[in-house]
Amino acid sequence: MKGGRGMAATRNRYAVGVDFGTESGRAVVVDLADGSEQGSAVHPYAHGVIDRRLPLLDAEVALGHDWALQDPDDYVRTFQAAVPAALARSGVDPADVVGIGIDFTACTMLPTVEDGTPLCRLPEWRRHPHAWVKLWKHHAAQPQADRINAVARQRAEPWLERYGGRISSEWFYSKALQILDEAPEVYAAADRLIEAADWVVWQLTGTETRNACTAGYKAIWSKDDGFPSDDYFAALHPGLAQVVDDKMSRTVVPVGAKAGELTAEAAAWTGLRPGTAVAVANVDAHVSVPASTVTGPGRLVAVMGTSTCHVLLGREARVVEGMCGVVEDGVIPGLFGFEAGQSGVGDIFAWFVDHAVPPAFHDAARRARTDVHTVLERDAAALRPGESGLVALDWWNGNRSVLVDGDLTGLLVGATLRTRAPDVYRALIEATAFGTRVIVDAFEEAGVAVDEIVACGGLPERNPLLMQIYADVTGREIKLAASAQTPSLGAAMFAAVAAGSGAGGYDDIVEATARMARLRSHRYVPVAAHGPVYDELHAEYLALHDQFGRDPGGVMKRLKALRARALAG
Amino acid sequence: MKGGRGMAATRNRYAVGVDFGTESGRAVVVDLADGSEQGSAVHPYAHGVIDRRLPLLDAEVALGHDWALQDPDDYVRTFQAAVPAALARSGVDPADVVGIGIDFTACTMLPTVEDGTPLCRLPEWRRHPHAWVKLWKHHAAQPQADRINAVARQRAEPWLERYGGRISSEWFYSKALQILDEAPEVYAAADRLIEAADWVVWQLTGTETRNACTAGYKAIWSKDDGFPSDDYFAALHPGLAQVVDDKMSRTVVPVGAKAGELTAEAAAWTGLRPGTAVAVANVDAHVSVPASTVTGPGRLVAVMGTSTCHVLLGREARVVEGMCGVVEDGVIPGLFGFEAGQSGVGDIFAWFVDHAVPPAFHDAARRARTDVHTVLERDAAALRPGESGLVALDWWNGNRSVLVDGDLTGLLVGATLRTRAPDVYRALIEATAFGTRVIVDAFEEAGVAVDEIVACGGLPERNPLLMQIYADVTGREIKLAASAQTPSLGAAMFAAVAAGSGAGGYDDIVEATARMARLRSHRYVPVAAHGPVYDELHAEYLALHDQFGRDPGGVMKRLKALRARALAG
Repeated sequence: MKGGRGMAATRNRYAVGVDFGTESGRAVVVDLADGSEQGSAVHPYAHGVIDRRLPLLDAEVALGHDWALQDPDDYVRTFQAAVPAALARSGVDPADVVGIGIDFTACTMLPTVEDGTPLCRLPEWRRHPHAWVKLWKHHAAQPQADRINAVARQRAEPWLERYGGRISSEWFYSKALQILDEAPEVYAAADRLIEAADWVVWQLTGTETRNACTAGYKAIWSKDDGFPSDDYFAALHPGLAQVVDDKMSRTVVPVGAKAGELTAEAAAWTGLRPGTAVAVANVDAHVSVPASTVTGPGRLVAVMGTSTCHVLLGREARVVEGMCGVVEDGVIPGLFGFEAGQSGVGDIFAWFVDHAVPPAFHDAARRARTDVHTVLERDAAALRPGESGLVALDWWNGNRSVLVDGDLTGLLVGATLRTRAPDVYRALIEATAFGTRVIVDAFEEAGVAVDEIVACGGLPERNPLLMQIYADVTGREIKLAASAQTPSLGAAMFAAVAAGSGAGGYDDIVEATARMARLRSHRYVPVAAHGPVYDELHAEYLALHDQFGRDPGGVMKRLKALRARALAG
Repeated sequence: MKGGRGMAATRNRYAVGVDFGTESGRAVVVDLADGSEQGSAVHPYAHGVIDRRLPLLDAEVALGHDWALQDPDDYVRTFQAAVPAALARSGVDPADVVGIGIDFTACTMLPTVEDGTPLCRLPEWRRHPHAWVKLWKHHAAQPQADRINAVARQRAEPWLERYGGRISSEWFYSKALQILDEAPEVYAAADRLIEAADWVVWQLTGTETRNACTAGYKAIWSKDDGFPSDDYFAALHPGLAQVVDDKMSRTVVPVGAKAGELTAEAAAWTGLRPGTAVAVANVDAHVSVPASTVTGPGRLVAVMGTSTCHVLLGREARVVEGMCGVVEDGVIPGLFGFEAGQSGVGDIFAWFVDHAVPPAFHDAARRARTDVHTVLERDAAALRPGESGLVALDWWNGNRSVLVDGDLTGLLVGATLRTRAPDVYRALIEATAFGTRVIVDAFEEAGVAVDEIVACGGLPERNPLLMQIYADVTGREIKLAASAQTPSLGAAMFAAVAAGSGAGGYDDIVEATARMARLRSHRYVPVAAHGPVYDELHAEYLALHDQFGRDPGGVMKRLKALRARALAG
């Protein structure tokens, strides 16, 4: 295809990135010279999120509340369907593809037997829910997470502070312990417990590897201290004492390394050539960092969608209030990657549009052939900072950083009979911006600089008002990643690094970033006049944040408990 | 008409009540035997609420922000149009009408010359906004109210505590002082400053009288102490020192008295006979008390509409936090009438339906040929107490009792991504119920018993869920007035008393009430199981109420100030 441009002298090279999302997998073919996307294809998972019953023809197995499973064969079918389709659309010769890399949701994990066969694929375990893949948003392991935290606090485990003082129910050991607690026979039958990210790389290479990113952020691994001690695991549950040696591996490979090469079988799935380099697995948010041009300290990457994930690099470990984790080599080799998060952002705006906006705005959107967000944003943009008279706490989906408390809820103060939907919409945007500022300030107070913000993900390109308010509230320039698909681009970039320069790739992620990742030319610059007003509003937010968020048994908790009691009858 | 029933032996007698509302006047003809409505007619005011410019053909006179005026000729036209129409519809012989009574919004006041001619009717003053009637919701006299309160506090005026510690910008002297401040020439030209309630009675009788209800609740009069001292008025403004003697009257007539008799001119307007007894003027909320069957202590009347007015009777004066006023003889002769209020009730629900309910509920209402309130109420009624997980502060329109602070604003806490419109709707209803409970508790703590609640006004009959929640939250039985038009019924009842038994009426309001006022048979009884849950929720409400409402410079004030600055540019 590129040959058509008459550039025979320098033969173009490509890499394939595969992004495994919650509902589908996406493959892209990327030009190594400039990161341009040559072709892409999306494969919707046949079984999507399994949260009501197992997808069995011969049995009815219902799932409990808060369960969320997946079928690992959906991942294999993504390789089989999306990669060949993307290749075909690109017109790229597989011989010119130097590597393939993947990124995944996390922690998404599964039990397998020794050779990597998922337990749920075996007839004797297929009907057992615990044999399937536990998706990141499987939330049924909260009791296990509570024990993990209680025992860690009791033993004063030194690693706890690296995770904002609290291990999530979404993470690896919460899910592993739930299997052991509720289905010891499944736990016993599982030779391996493995991140789906690593499992798909295993399927490509025939070799089990464990990446530093998921090990660090989800399985409490660090380069210096390794995993939690066997004593800790034994204190948690005697059966868990040997979990690392029995079911996992102490060999953890930094991101950017080569995991292996495509097997003949995987080559047949994908249409790529056997022996193509395969990168060590990675995570969607973290792989977006270099894809957003960030490979060094000072530039916070905000991956903004239904929720926001913040990743920041530093030269040394620091304790930052409420961070999700800090992992050496977890994002960019040689640096510490700090992660923080806001558990509700785009989903709060979506909730508002779906459940709190009157018909007039829906009608206006229809007439203008646009969406309700656009109509609200137009009216909200006409308001001056402070004009709404409102301030909100953006906790409709709890708070991750810095309070690490899923039981916190949303608050709105200042409503009057003059309050209109665009006022509230703007207040909700501002609230998420104040939430970001709290995180930025926590990093800076811990000595981790945040000089500017680079945004990627679905929200930024669609919401200029949102971006301007974030710039005004944080007092920082905000740049946007050029790619609308930073995860798959990042996966392809790591594929290029796994291949190495000898094979037409790059020797490290910094070089790959310099060549393949770009920013949009438009940047959002703080409006000087808005700063003082937003400083005042942020002070209000912060006072409410501390009052409602730092009160251990506060009103939000009591209202949730009352609700639970009412629902229990 | 009644004669048709063959009851010639006992000739039926009737009274006419005229209710002067904000947008229209309503006349009813009522049978004295049982209070039944024989005919009614509504006259919409030609000029309604004048809040943008004066209704002049020959000049353009714009009004300031927060102004609200009326044209006194609209009141006269109500007598001319609505009374004859109601009489015609009733078929009643004017010879059988023993009296006419009126009730009015208050404080609605105007300047006149000596003979009662409104200044605004005179060509030389017609273009001057201050020459017109200032409607109750004219809110442009806040600076004057602030001075009235500051000087009263400074001088430790004993009457201040009778009004919850704060005189409203809506009341008589705030408006009078605004005229003096801003238009001293109008003030000088005004021989009289008078409540519109008393002015219309003057038009009927040819004689100026001043009723105890508006004098007490709006002009700081008490039976024992009279009006504030001339020294106080002089301290406020030297030109105001003689306001009572120069522009008002120290003769204040208790409600239930006869003001005079219909002049020939007024008889021609109304179609009634000259000499028909005319009752002393009264106020809409207060006249609803006997019309709701209440003539003694222990039974709180809640007049529920866009806002709620609470009236309660007691045998002695008490200081109750945040009450609007306590007036001896102001409601029922011989008793102290306590008034309290919630400044936003129905208008909060209306705001919610208009500005925060998504299309699905509007569509469902259309399909079911009902209104959105009904659809929301059905879904909200299916929720158990506590199930919404929400608690709100009902201050969308400020707070009257017990905090007396118009700058307070609405608050909602507990929202999650699962929150739906019926959850919020129920939380708003509950919030207004908690607000009522605060008032009930304040009365009881001050030693004024509240044994049960009698509701009247537009809201109760349309909203059974609202009534049940009020019963559950307050722990008190709630009964409903049978009449949907308690103000005009009450005005007619006082007309019957003005006529007296000798003329076929009644000798006092207690007797008139026993004969003419009724309750509905259905009453709302507290559900025992709901009590403990609502006690818990009320405790949450109260904690937020005190935290946000008793903080003199709190976040709500600061947000309002920020809004004002933003709007000022």
